[in-house]
Amino acid sequence: MLSLKNQKIFVTGGAGFIGSHLIGTLLQEKACVIAYDNLVLGKKEFLNLYFRDPNFRFVKADLLNTKILEKSIKKSNIVFHLAANSDISYGTKYTDVDLKRGTIATYNVLEAMRKNNIKKIIFTSTSAVYGEPEITPTPENYGPLFPISLYGASKLACEGLISAFCHNYNMQAWIFRLANIVGENATHGAVLDFIKKLKKNPKILEILGNGEQSKPYLYVKECVAGMLFGVKNAKDKLNYFNLSCGGGTKVKTMAKIIVKEMGLKNTKFKFSGGKRGWSGDVSRVRLDPSKINNLGWRPKLNSDEAVKAGIKNLLKQINF
Amino acid sequence: MLSLKNQKIFVTGGAGFIGSHLIGTLLQEKACVIAYDNLVLGKKEFLNLYFRDPNFRFVKADLLNTKILEKSIKKSNIVFHLAANSDISYGTKYTDVDLKRGTIATYNVLEAMRKNNIKKIIFTSTSAVYGEPEITPTPENYGPLFPISLYGASKLACEGLISAFCHNYNMQAWIFRLANIVGENATHGAVLDFIKKLKKNPKILEILGNGEQSKPYLYVKECVAGMLFGVKNAKDKLNYFNLSCGGGTKVKTMAKIIVKEMGLKNTKFKFSGGKRGWSGDVSRVRLDPSKINNLGWRPKLNSDEAVKAGIKNLLKQINF
Repeated sequence: MLSLKNQKIFVTGGAGFIGSHLIGTLLQEKACVIAYDNLVLGKKEFLNLYFRDPNFRFVKADLLNTKILEKSIKKSNIVFHLAANSDISYGTKYTDVDLKRGTIATYNVLEAMRKNNIKKIIFTSTSAVYGEPEITPTPENYGPLFPISLYGASKLACEGLISAFCHNYNMQAWIFRLANIVGENATHGAVLDFIKKLKKNPKILEILGNGEQSKPYLYVKECVAGMLFGVKNAKDKLNYFNLSCGGGTKVKTMAKIIVKEMGLKNTKFKFSGGKRGWSGDVSRVRLDPSKINNLGWRPKLNSDEAVKAGIKNLLKQINF
Repeated sequence: MLSLKNQKIFVTGGAGFIGSHLIGTLLQEKACVIAYDNLVLGKKEFLNLYFRDPNFRFVKADLLNTKILEKSIKKSNIVFHLAANSDISYGTKYTDVDLKRGTIATYNVLEAMRKNNIKKIIFTSTSAVYGEPEITPTPENYGPLFPISLYGASKLACEGLISAFCHNYNMQAWIFRLANIVGENATHGAVLDFIKKLKKNPKILEILGNGEQSKPYLYVKECVAGMLFGVKNAKDKLNYFNLSCGGGTKVKTMAKIIVKEMGLKNTKFKFSGGKRGWSGDVSRVRLDPSKINNLGWRPKLNSDEAVKAGIKNLLKQINF
């Protein structure tokens, strides 16, 4: 089993939602960690706990700056590549965002690894690569892959790049197609949006779509645990997993949980209507987690429980 | 059935191998055609027959020059996007070639279409998106898609971009995953390489790999016919087809056909060894053509016949 102790680990998007949690665990396991983040979505304060650790270093820079990237990554031997534009609807409005911050950034990471002879990459992909699949729960070998968002298209492009780099330059990869992640340090997403809206106006909550959109949720700390389990136990050249619970939670259920956890009463829901939250939104997602289950890992929380835990902890953080 | 008469058609890679044949057919069908090509692989002489046609115009420019691209594409209503780096092994050596000439170029085409309200795109993809599939002949809904070449990774990225643009900006697309194409106006590939080598030295032919690599071949004029049949008859928002015969031809069989058609005797084959011709080469490819067959089209020539016809016509052209 791969041990992380004394490994030199480079985390892109290190100040982001998942990255900031991941780094905590990596430092606990006595790895040396460089967090690389442009702080467009990430926040330096998410890393406050780690700055006193001598095994931790932060580089504020962009993945499009290949000079700083190649210099910073030089001495690492494992790369967790988490950085991306995670706001799907933003990428529909500004069509070059996912190309630049997703596809080209990922190429830059892989090329910097190739030049510096770094062989292991872990990548956070998404259920959005499946587009609107005919089979649900969707297994990893589903095809064809026709994403309906530019975000999904970019993640698919990154998976292809990783696969080709693995084959041609003898790298090893772990690709995790993530469910929706919830919890403290969230930088975007429906949960955070709803909390912000309710803080402004607790009487009415506007919900994009008809509220029937339904997706699987994973609590952020379970997401990190699942990724590390996969990295330590999956030994193929190219490893790929849905990282998810089996079920899902409706947007309107999530909204009800938030209202309850915030201690609000008589909040009215106003639905914008239509089956999607926005153009490119996949209204019903179910991921088949059998592959990671069979390797020996499953989340302790089901989708509703993950939503509850995520919201509770996020609210604690926001109200602190 | 979609008629091409009087359509304003923009062909990227118009001076290339497939593009130059396609334009002949489009002009015969009375379409107005703009060929856009940077002449890196394409050749202006392939278009000589068309310059006198008042419905034809040539623009020598690069797809990375978005200013000229957006100006040139403006009045078109159908785009055949054929331009790409078609040299797979070159893309393994220079890792940014397929990213730039494939993925970013395709984004630029789609974005230029979006800005100018152009709704129809035809795209030449490849069997390389399937990587090394466990199922052969490989159907279009095969998954997972893990290409082993940067060329395949780029084509997969382009398919994803096209899918997302179709969904979000109401476009319609026809994606053709092509077999190996042979015939006159070839700008690259094993057939052309072998002919060039044999013209230099008819005694010995060096063949990359063990010669057992086996792929399906399609004669270039049949490729154009199949694409146009698909465009005219497939009416989904996102149409995708393997464009291929059912069988395949071994590299050493192809070499024997070339030697025979060149009238050579006693040529010795020298194999470089290994199951692949180069890193990223898929040694055995079989495409399931049922989907386009069921729509009503199949090539007249089988793989060996296509190789023979392609070589005959290419030799005629070279010896002219």
